[in-house]
Amino acid sequence: MKKQSYAVAGTSAHRVDGIEKVTGKALYTSDLQLPGMAHARILRSPVAHAKIVKVDASKAKAFPGVIATLTRDDIQGFNYKYGATYKDQSIVAVDKVRYVGDPVAAVLADDPAAAEQALELIEVEYEELPKVTNIEEAVAPGAALVHEAGVARAELRGSVYGAPERFNGTNVCYYLTFGREEVTKGFAKADHIFEDTFRFQKVQHYSLEAHNNVAYYDGEKLTVWASCQDPFTLRDHLSGIFRLPLSRIRVIVPYVGGGYGGKLYVKCEPISAALSWMTRRPVKLQLSVNESFKTVTRHPARVTVKTGVTKDGKLIARDCQVYMDTGAYADAGPRVTQKAAYRSLGPYKIPYANVEAYGVYSNTVPAGAFRGFGALQVTWAYESQMDMIADRLGIDPLELRLKNLLKKGDVYTVGDTPVDCDLKEGLLKVADAIQWQNKSKKANRAKGISCCIKDAGGTYKVAGATVKMSSDGSVVLLTGTVEVGQGPRTALTQVVAEELSLPMDQITVAQLDTDVTPYDISTSASSSMVVMGTAVLRAAEDTKKQLLQCAAKILKKKASELRLHDGQILAGERPVLSYSKVIVDFFGSKAGEIIGKGLYKDKRNAKAVLGSTTTFWEVGWGGVEVEVDPDTGVVHILKYVSACDAGKAINPEQCVGQDEGAVMFGVGHTLMEEMVYEDGQLLNGNLVDYTVPRFNDMPDALETILIENGNGPGPFGSKGIGEGGLLPVASAVANAVSRAVGVRIQELPLTPPKIWRALQAKSSSQA
Amino acid sequence: MKKQSYAVAGTSAHRVDGIEKVTGKALYTSDLQLPGMAHARILRSPVAHAKIVKVDASKAKAFPGVIATLTRDDIQGFNYKYGATYKDQSIVAVDKVRYVGDPVAAVLADDPAAAEQALELIEVEYEELPKVTNIEEAVAPGAALVHEAGVARAELRGSVYGAPERFNGTNVCYYLTFGREEVTKGFAKADHIFEDTFRFQKVQHYSLEAHNNVAYYDGEKLTVWASCQDPFTLRDHLSGIFRLPLSRIRVIVPYVGGGYGGKLYVKCEPISAALSWMTRRPVKLQLSVNESFKTVTRHPARVTVKTGVTKDGKLIARDCQVYMDTGAYADAGPRVTQKAAYRSLGPYKIPYANVEAYGVYSNTVPAGAFRGFGALQVTWAYESQMDMIADRLGIDPLELRLKNLLKKGDVYTVGDTPVDCDLKEGLLKVADAIQWQNKSKKANRAKGISCCIKDAGGTYKVAGATVKMSSDGSVVLLTGTVEVGQGPRTALTQVVAEELSLPMDQITVAQLDTDVTPYDISTSASSSMVVMGTAVLRAAEDTKKQLLQCAAKILKKKASELRLHDGQILAGERPVLSYSKVIVDFFGSKAGEIIGKGLYKDKRNAKAVLGSTTTFWEVGWGGVEVEVDPDTGVVHILKYVSACDAGKAINPEQCVGQDEGAVMFGVGHTLMEEMVYEDGQLLNGNLVDYTVPRFNDMPDALETILIENGNGPGPFGSKGIGEGGLLPVASAVANAVSRAVGVRIQELPLTPPKIWRALQAKSSSQA
Repeated sequence: MKKQSYAVAGTSAHRVDGIEKVTGKALYTSDLQLPGMAHARILRSPVAHAKIVKVDASKAKAFPGVIATLTRDDIQGFNYKYGATYKDQSIVAVDKVRYVGDPVAAVLADDPAAAEQALELIEVEYEELPKVTNIEEAVAPGAALVHEAGVARAELRGSVYGAPERFNGTNVCYYLTFGREEVTKGFAKADHIFEDTFRFQKVQHYSLEAHNNVAYYDGEKLTVWASCQDPFTLRDHLSGIFRLPLSRIRVIVPYVGGGYGGKLYVKCEPISAALSWMTRRPVKLQLSVNESFKTVTRHPARVTVKTGVTKDGKLIARDCQVYMDTGAYADAGPRVTQKAAYRSLGPYKIPYANVEAYGVYSNTVPAGAFRGFGALQVTWAYESQMDMIADRLGIDPLELRLKNLLKKGDVYTVGDTPVDCDLKEGLLKVADAIQWQNKSKKANRAKGISCCIKDAGGTYKVAGATVKMSSDGSVVLLTGTVEVGQGPRTALTQVVAEELSLPMDQITVAQLDTDVTPYDISTSASSSMVVMGTAVLRAAEDTKKQLLQCAAKILKKKASELRLHDGQILAGERPVLSYSKVIVDFFGSKAGEIIGKGLYKDKRNAKAVLGSTTTFWEVGWGGVEVEVDPDTGVVHILKYVSACDAGKAINPEQCVGQDEGAVMFGVGHTLMEEMVYEDGQLLNGNLVDYTVPRFNDMPDALETILIENGNGPGPFGSKGIGEGGLLPVASAVANAVSRAVGVRIQELPLTPPKIWRALQAKSSSQA
Repeated sequence: MKKQSYAVAGTSAHRVDGIEKVTGKALYTSDLQLPGMAHARILRSPVAHAKIVKVDASKAKAFPGVIATLTRDDIQGFNYKYGATYKDQSIVAVDKVRYVGDPVAAVLADDPAAAEQALELIEVEYEELPKVTNIEEAVAPGAALVHEAGVARAELRGSVYGAPERFNGTNVCYYLTFGREEVTKGFAKADHIFEDTFRFQKVQHYSLEAHNNVAYYDGEKLTVWASCQDPFTLRDHLSGIFRLPLSRIRVIVPYVGGGYGGKLYVKCEPISAALSWMTRRPVKLQLSVNESFKTVTRHPARVTVKTGVTKDGKLIARDCQVYMDTGAYADAGPRVTQKAAYRSLGPYKIPYANVEAYGVYSNTVPAGAFRGFGALQVTWAYESQMDMIADRLGIDPLELRLKNLLKKGDVYTVGDTPVDCDLKEGLLKVADAIQWQNKSKKANRAKGISCCIKDAGGTYKVAGATVKMSSDGSVVLLTGTVEVGQGPRTALTQVVAEELSLPMDQITVAQLDTDVTPYDISTSASSSMVVMGTAVLRAAEDTKKQLLQCAAKILKKKASELRLHDGQILAGERPVLSYSKVIVDFFGSKAGEIIGKGLYKDKRNAKAVLGSTTTFWEVGWGGVEVEVDPDTGVVHILKYVSACDAGKAINPEQCVGQDEGAVMFGVGHTLMEEMVYEDGQLLNGNLVDYTVPRFNDMPDALETILIENGNGPGPFGSKGIGEGGLLPVASAVANAVSRAVGVRIQELPLTPPKIWRALQAKSSSQA
């Protein structure tokens, strides 16, 4: 990308949805009111694993205000099995319940209170079964099966995700292995071999807006207003369940109050849609926070990393054994496990490698997509181990990393996009910013670093966009990217403003509606700026081309002699016609408009390990200084520096905001967040007992270094960001804690009790 | 158009919105609920013409539940003058009120009742002015001026509509003259010259759904849900008033319960938009039926036709003097007057002609667009006169017409599209159907015929459409044509189904929303099938082309070797790939779609009288047999036959329905409808006193003859219909009444008292 100056791209323009949001005017799905709208509530399993002997909703049905009930008897007419990857979930439970919270029935009533009360009148008889609630139990020989073998196998068939026959009759629902060169040869060459195991806990997305939707089937068309991140994919799932053509399903997405992957694919929408199908009433389904905890989580993981190194610190061989607990239903688990496996080798040149990854069912809440998408669990492991190796070899952790980093242009695996940035640059920048070379001066303080890489994009990406210029020259942008809070409305508006040389206030973004918005696969994987940004840029270019052609016709000049500047056509440096005048002249009246289209498609590559190449490489670099209170085990973050490879920051302020948000998000699972289970029961699924970072948990100093080398494939050289900042946090902090107080925690989160106990154990062993 | 067989076009497919509507599920604007929505009510002038001395809303503002009031003091910040043709109307009255019902102020309250009550607390002081309430008063020398000369002139400048200087200081706001050859020469050659004057009354559109809208300005964007026929034009007007770029205004059109021209341009939307602007609350404004009567009407007219004929009945010369009463504000009056003038020569070859038309202000409800758009008033005149001429010359009225009809390919005026159908064919068909040659056998019974032509399209038409095919091959159509009840959803779906060879249930129509729907100028002038139909056909063709190109690539064949059939690509006669398979293969996944675009633009022709050529010629032929009760004056329609030139009926059942509806609509103003004024006060603006045809007013037999010669410019040879059936009714009935009982009524409607009195006068003069 040649360097050039931009008028709008690269400026920290105010958020276009800012005023609307801070004044409370912005409409979310839960604001929606429809005539005749009724309210649904879900009855959930109180037990982790059981056969359902009886479900009788007749008393609930007779309760005043109740319009309908939904049990297994009512879903037989639908194609009721569904799932993000495998069709292993059903609208409500049929034969078994598989986790505490599994939907068993639902009630539709005129008001939410009546629905809530009527739930208690539904009679369900369970016959409890042995349960497996973590990876160890799930993979133990003779473990209770979450899904009966026969059923599970059948559902896997035909999917690109699956597991070999040998896993029949086990809880392993996905298996992947891949490598670089024969790993045993590599270990044979190593001077030292280190094997360490790390654990990642179960956490929730904790979106401020819990899952909710309104579904209305009027007999002809199913319309769903959903707080979701991928309306086109949701449409696809609903089309399967209700056997409707895609054109008879319309998904509309108002503003979304946080997603982080938890609102991808299909969640509780089939329940409200089924109730609306039965009653022809608009059905609102608003989950509570506790229910969101019972809907989807991040994957708990156990990652064993075995690394062979030379005595001077060159990484030679690595074997990773990755276990991901996907809970009671696969959801996106196989995909997440696949990505965890693929990303487990880290940003290092390791010639000999082998990875094996297992997606495992358990009787817990389904785990699905979650910011980081598997990268987080393995980064935690391999970047913790890097410091452990450095300690063991007596090498500086920064030096060890610098010695082994992949270089720009290196190949991660054969067939994939070569590394598209300078990993060293960012790492040195964060090291410099935390003054790595200067040891912390006070006791119980120390610094830590971490570095990782993630193939971004994630799935095969397709996105379309339309730019509609009216006869006054103002523009409406149609884009399928969901405004989840991450700022694409503003950034994509800037792309259009830049390309069409228009003030931003002349551009608005249309409501996302699958009927009219061009297809977009999903808002996920830090990909919107590259994937949708490119589609939007192309749509703007198409508009520009048409506008210049019309102008050329009117002016009797060549289009190549003209250019756009601030709403005017320039011939040379002279403004000769406004955009509006061009359109009015061309159409012979104010009636008319120019419509530009843009499309982006990822490249397929059959030779690539995952079948398609990464859209771009997202990098995370983190440097931290912590202080550990030896009396309480409390970790206090004095300073955190994140480097963020934005390629070209379309809106620097928003990029920094995204990156800071990512770091804070990371602080959550690093220091405090954890879903606590006892006997299969979730103990802390609420806003009081489940703690997330608050303002006083913020680092005393938090800094983001934007790296802009214009090396991204997105508009004006941009790359996607948003996950990179999150990935190094846990390992950087654990590395710093280890250097500060000499205890190495391999199991997240780094809670005060855990650190305190480790300190106690250390001092008693030293004593 | 070559004759060919069609699978879907030409079948009477069920209405796609039928079930929704008969089950009450279809959503209209008035069904809309928004969080925080408030309700507006309008205070209207009780006097016909007055200066406003004082408007004080302070007491209303203090009334419990009132959120805001809107008076002339509140609109100064807006560009508050607006109008369909001239900017002569203001959001609420400023200096004067000009008719009984003129909006003076508005109240916004939490509920409609509070708003209604608070209206009474607004103190307004009027200083009454002399008024003009009909054409005669308005054009009398020294008449009171509805609009002060200076003001009116200034507002006219720069408009294509206007009046010469000599009308300064008069109520004439529009004047047009045009002709064929020098008319005095023609009259010199005539054997007989007949001059007759006809009057057309003031009637209302009487849509079942009164005017209503919801407006919401959130500080960034103004969204208006409106019961309107031309959302893009409404957007344009609101953009002017509120000084917002078009991209910051979004007009959404749910189903509309009747329009007939009464919901074109801009009506009460600026009031609700202004209230929302002031309060940032969603504002619902629901007019009562009486208020719709006070919002827009059809033009009362006085038409004097002077016709020169040879003794054997050849028309040689015609002079028409057309006066159209446009009420207190111009609205579409100048355009309607222009069209009335242009259409006043009728479907006849008259070599020498002169037309002068005057649009005249009066202190009555503004008259605007109304089904027929000026054609109705002049048809009533010239087709009544044709029978009078026939009587005077002793020639059979059918023969007189046949002798003078324009032929296919004849030119109406230089530069316009030649006549595109056989006028004789339809006239003979209706004559045959009512057995014209056989006189009615019973006393007081007789037959009448009428024939007319209308340049359809009306204004310069532009329409775009998009066809969006998803990866399962199903389609969403984006079209700006409003479903007002006339059936375009069904007919346009048929066009797509035909072109893409898909079952209709695979196709749906997206909600009309100016943000996302391609531009369409308006749903009016019987033009949707030709104008939008062509855009839709082109969008489907574009989709088909892309689909075939993708298929060709996959199959390694030429696109020209392939064709579409019932969701499958055929190579030869063999189905080789489904549409879905083509898209999935092309995109490499289910992610993706094909988007086809289509555009229609009318032709400009500077040489044409009206600057652009007619889109197509719409013809009306009517034949009727009536019985007049001499004791009561009641006219009973025994049989009515309408011929309808559909070119190619895309949906014959719907065409017949439209045509029958048009006839019944015509029966209204022919026999009963009339807005009765006394001293400037409307006496019957309600559903009880203003009578429209009911089931027992239907003709005993009602027949539509569809003429399908494939000579239309629309899809598959179609033409527009919907107004043609309406135009001949009044003259055909009056002609029959005259032949039945010997009284010639030249002033509509033909009410029993009017006929009875004429019969009495006739018998007393004969006595």
